[in-house]
Amino acid sequence: MTPSTITFTARLREAAEVVEASLETLLADKVRHGEIARPARLMAAMRHGALGGGKRLRPFLTIETARLLGRDGEGPLRAGCAVELLHCYSLVHDDLPSMDDDDLRRGRPTVHRAFDEATAILVGDALQTLAFEVLADPATDADPAIRSDLVLGLARASGLGGMVGGQLLDLSAEGRYGPADLAEADVRRLQMMKTGAILTFSVEAGAIVGRADAAARGRLVEYGRALGAAFQVADDILDREASAEAMGKRTGKDQEKGKATLVDLLGMEGARRECRDLVEKAQGALDGFGPRAEILREAVRFVVEREA
Amino acid sequence: MTPSTITFTARLREAAEVVEASLETLLADKVRHGEIARPARLMAAMRHGALGGGKRLRPFLTIETARLLGRDGEGPLRAGCAVELLHCYSLVHDDLPSMDDDDLRRGRPTVHRAFDEATAILVGDALQTLAFEVLADPATDADPAIRSDLVLGLARASGLGGMVGGQLLDLSAEGRYGPADLAEADVRRLQMMKTGAILTFSVEAGAIVGRADAAARGRLVEYGRALGAAFQVADDILDREASAEAMGKRTGKDQEKGKATLVDLLGMEGARRECRDLVEKAQGALDGFGPRAEILREAVRFVVEREA
Repeated sequence: MTPSTITFTARLREAAEVVEASLETLLADKVRHGEIARPARLMAAMRHGALGGGKRLRPFLTIETARLLGRDGEGPLRAGCAVELLHCYSLVHDDLPSMDDDDLRRGRPTVHRAFDEATAILVGDALQTLAFEVLADPATDADPAIRSDLVLGLARASGLGGMVGGQLLDLSAEGRYGPADLAEADVRRLQMMKTGAILTFSVEAGAIVGRADAAARGRLVEYGRALGAAFQVADDILDREASAEAMGKRTGKDQEKGKATLVDLLGMEGARRECRDLVEKAQGALDGFGPRAEILREAVRFVVEREA
Repeated sequence: MTPSTITFTARLREAAEVVEASLETLLADKVRHGEIARPARLMAAMRHGALGGGKRLRPFLTIETARLLGRDGEGPLRAGCAVELLHCYSLVHDDLPSMDDDDLRRGRPTVHRAFDEATAILVGDALQTLAFEVLADPATDADPAIRSDLVLGLARASGLGGMVGGQLLDLSAEGRYGPADLAEADVRRLQMMKTGAILTFSVEAGAIVGRADAAARGRLVEYGRALGAAFQVADDILDREASAEAMGKRTGKDQEKGKATLVDLLGMEGARRECRDLVEKAQGALDGFGPRAEILREAVRFVVEREA
């Protein structure tokens, strides 16, 4: 590992720790806002779905993007936690029996296996709500224009035209709703919606709380898009290669379900080439930000080399 | 019917029409924000879940509360539509097989019957997201502080400490998660969370967009709470009495599932008395607003006399 890789790994781990602590506080079983005590079962299941796992890549991107712009502390951390809560909700719902029907997530039982299906649906619902609650709370930013901008951005990245729309396209790609014969453009669109939009917003959220001007925000969004696309190609490559042990979840799933991936469409070598191109594109978008952007450059390398 | 009842009925119908048209626009199958076309199946299922039915009581309350404060037009309408989208999402998820397992809603097949379970879960998810997107959009209010306030209020009313928490308590009340022996306080808490919080917020949203001062907002929230509680007691009474034909959905469901309602705890006469007390309380909260509040007074009567 190069020195910058060591720094990156330490920063990623450090961010994961503060995010975990912050999510723990947000999900603490105590009365807030004069609320009467919350249902204990729902609290426990939300904690199961959101705590104790994951690299916390999304909040890391939010925090580091804000730091690049000279902003740190509670604001970027809370914005990052909101993105992570949104991500956790999507995992809980995607794992449901009527969706991907997964029993394990990060080596632990999924929420509907550890609790039950109704509880898992409500956990996802409540985690989504909590993400928006966190963003709209004055503790995230004193400026309500920043808070509204964050809410609007997260909503657009995660709804019908973003993550949830992408999940429906993904189910369609299995052939559930009629024959699926996806061309390259369809696979790219599906991936951009399903995983790319939220990864891009993780970066954009940092740009928003960091008060980036329009030009800087545009370049950071470009970085986020390339990083999101690289993440997904790398995922397709991993899905084909990795063993179940290394990933802690079932793999080869896409193949099993007959879903076309970029590896099918471009070939393994073509997919690897695309990955390299996207890394270059993402890093190019950071050119104007100088050496302080090194950590975000490392983030792209990390995203495509996750199997190591 | 008295003249004021005629006015009320006309205003309720008129609000339902503008709300329907506005929801239609929000759910129109067209490209917005430069989005690539949305998945057609998800669009169609969202339309099934949100259009063509219901009295639209919640947006009516938002619109009329804002009007009482001298504000009308697009802002209150959009705020009301957001509350309605949130309400529709909760109905779609509550109807799911693992929840209340209902085949019919307003006399039509529920979303998971008309489409499938995975699609219905995604419909609920996307309707929730859209509710927050609508509130955070500058088209709802030019002032970002108002928009943030709306987002925060809706999130608190609908999440873990509100509607979703109430739904989990409701499932618990069926005895799914161990013996359920609900005392009066538990039933009241469940109802306040499950249905009362969103009804209260319907009114509060009107107070927020209508720029109510703290005192007026407090009284309107008090009105909303009493109205929400009256709604639920009336629902318990209806559930015991009404026939399946009159309601367009299965009734006597609570009894069938062994859930305690206020009718069990207070008796039919006690429940009717509580209804009358709540009507009086709600109307009392409107005392300082003069004759322009007559429409909101009628709304409480309407809520408790729905069976007529």
